[in-house]
Amino acid sequence: MGDPAGIGPEIIARCLADADLRASARFVVHGCGACLTLAQERCGVLSNWYRVDAAHDPTHRWLDDVVVLDDTSHGDLITLATEPTKRGGSASKQWVESAIADALLEPHAPRHVDAVVTGPISKQSWNMAGFKWLGHTELLAARTKSKRACMVFESPQLRVALATVHIPLMSLRDVLTIGCVFEPIDLGWQACQQLGITRPRIAVCGLNPHAGEDGLLGDEENRVIAPAISMAREQGIDAHGPFPADTIFRQAVGGRWDMVVAMYHDQGLIPLKLLGGGTAVNWTIGLPIIRTSPDHGTAFDIAGSSVANHDSMRSAISLAVQLAQRNATMAATTS
Amino acid sequence: MGDPAGIGPEIIARCLADADLRASARFVVHGCGACLTLAQERCGVLSNWYRVDAAHDPTHRWLDDVVVLDDTSHGDLITLATEPTKRGGSASKQWVESAIADALLEPHAPRHVDAVVTGPISKQSWNMAGFKWLGHTELLAARTKSKRACMVFESPQLRVALATVHIPLMSLRDVLTIGCVFEPIDLGWQACQQLGITRPRIAVCGLNPHAGEDGLLGDEENRVIAPAISMAREQGIDAHGPFPADTIFRQAVGGRWDMVVAMYHDQGLIPLKLLGGGTAVNWTIGLPIIRTSPDHGTAFDIAGSSVANHDSMRSAISLAVQLAQRNATMAATTS
Repeated sequence: MGDPAGIGPEIIARCLADADLRASARFVVHGCGACLTLAQERCGVLSNWYRVDAAHDPTHRWLDDVVVLDDTSHGDLITLATEPTKRGGSASKQWVESAIADALLEPHAPRHVDAVVTGPISKQSWNMAGFKWLGHTELLAARTKSKRACMVFESPQLRVALATVHIPLMSLRDVLTIGCVFEPIDLGWQACQQLGITRPRIAVCGLNPHAGEDGLLGDEENRVIAPAISMAREQGIDAHGPFPADTIFRQAVGGRWDMVVAMYHDQGLIPLKLLGGGTAVNWTIGLPIIRTSPDHGTAFDIAGSSVANHDSMRSAISLAVQLAQRNATMAATTS
Repeated sequence: MGDPAGIGPEIIARCLADADLRASARFVVHGCGACLTLAQERCGVLSNWYRVDAAHDPTHRWLDDVVVLDDTSHGDLITLATEPTKRGGSASKQWVESAIADALLEPHAPRHVDAVVTGPISKQSWNMAGFKWLGHTELLAARTKSKRACMVFESPQLRVALATVHIPLMSLRDVLTIGCVFEPIDLGWQACQQLGITRPRIAVCGLNPHAGEDGLLGDEENRVIAPAISMAREQGIDAHGPFPADTIFRQAVGGRWDMVVAMYHDQGLIPLKLLGGGTAVNWTIGLPIIRTSPDHGTAFDIAGSSVANHDSMRSAISLAVQLAQRNATMAATTS
């Protein structure tokens, strides 16, 4: 559900009222039942679900198409102010932990889920609740013991993988290594293949203006990025670059590239959000579980007013379903 | 003319063949007459001009609408390879120096010009010729003794000012000061007013992901950028921020802001070039002279094939004419 005081409950309520989406999979919502009911009323949408106490440990798989694991242990959450709060942080952290735990269960376990879609959380709420995680991605990587997690953003016009995410920009000096650049190229290539692209063409951004202009404006291109691209090409990955970041996204939009690997958060998200307009999806690759999320935050400023756009959440759910179905097909083929 | 081996000659030839543009001002081309003639033939356009030896020092103002100051001191430039060369660097450096010198002359001097539009140069050519300037902007600032020059990019959808330009990204740690951020806000505000916007609304980008998320992801927003915005507001400038860079450009495109101040080259140019598609113009503000240029480089890969798009050069000339006419009107009003 994400932060109960954010727009999470209302975008979930709208998605659960979407007949096509609902028919595409079965859903388990880790969150607050009262928040979801209130969001549904405010949005003027109608859907039904099976309420289960969050602590309940089933012996059989639930058959209902939507199960809400209602967690009442954090007190009355519907009256929370629409801002970062300690209780919102505690609750949203616990919900995502339980969702990850369920995804990591053996496939035959009653609570097993095939994919996790996370609602928007507030890092400040998590911070107030004493959790120092920079975000979902870092928590997911730790809980699934994944050393190579990487964020990919999907939008109708662009697909972008990030070499670094939630770190101060000036920390790149210490963080950007050949391995750090190689991973999103390698994982991004696998991700494209999971989407059915047989020979993905991958463009890698430079770090500096004009991609360093052959060393005149910074050495990371020659010292770090070019070697990572060579390493990827040695493995048969069709990777190119480093390219000036201010020209490569236009080429990608024009169809020249299946994926752009950006060196840092804003480099990839500025073009994506400029074009995407709320439809982009965040996909964490390199994990043993499927995880997607909308590309926006809690939007506390509009939370509760039922005006939030649920397009990104719907796209996130659709992508998770698509990936889970592909996994199921692959498993059936190999078993 | 910019680098004679780049696309400069052909985009100038196309602009000089544009009747509307030609009627809007009188032009002096500092460059190579043979290159311009060849470019004209290749492009299949026709225009006439008055050829003058570059070394000629007139006693009266030229009356022709186009004067080409033909510089033959660099040898045969039409046979230069379309790549960075020492001779291309020497020639293009000398031409821009003479154009700047003419712009700095007293208004009554025969060679005085009201504005300078620079063609694309190659920093590598300049480097090969022994010139260590990072680009036009730094040279212009030095020659005009301007401490506060700043680059502004104009496109139909966005207007962006840059706090830093051609420096390695990791150098921002040492370069980004309160003054460095204040200047593009202050100069950008003046630039908007020169364009006739009476009360410009200015948005300032953060440096870090999510604009630092209140200090969680970097301290430059609180330590440097916010104080610069406060300083600007004290002076009556309607500046706001720092905002997350991945959301503010969409707002600007939607009309919420008259100018966005970006902290570094790619932060401003990624959205600009993604949307602009070759029509953006570079405008150096804070100089005692008017200076604009196209927003692209020498494009050696297509130079000589006459396929280069001259939209950006045309826009650069139009903006220079507009600004010069406004200066003339202001001078007439105050005298």
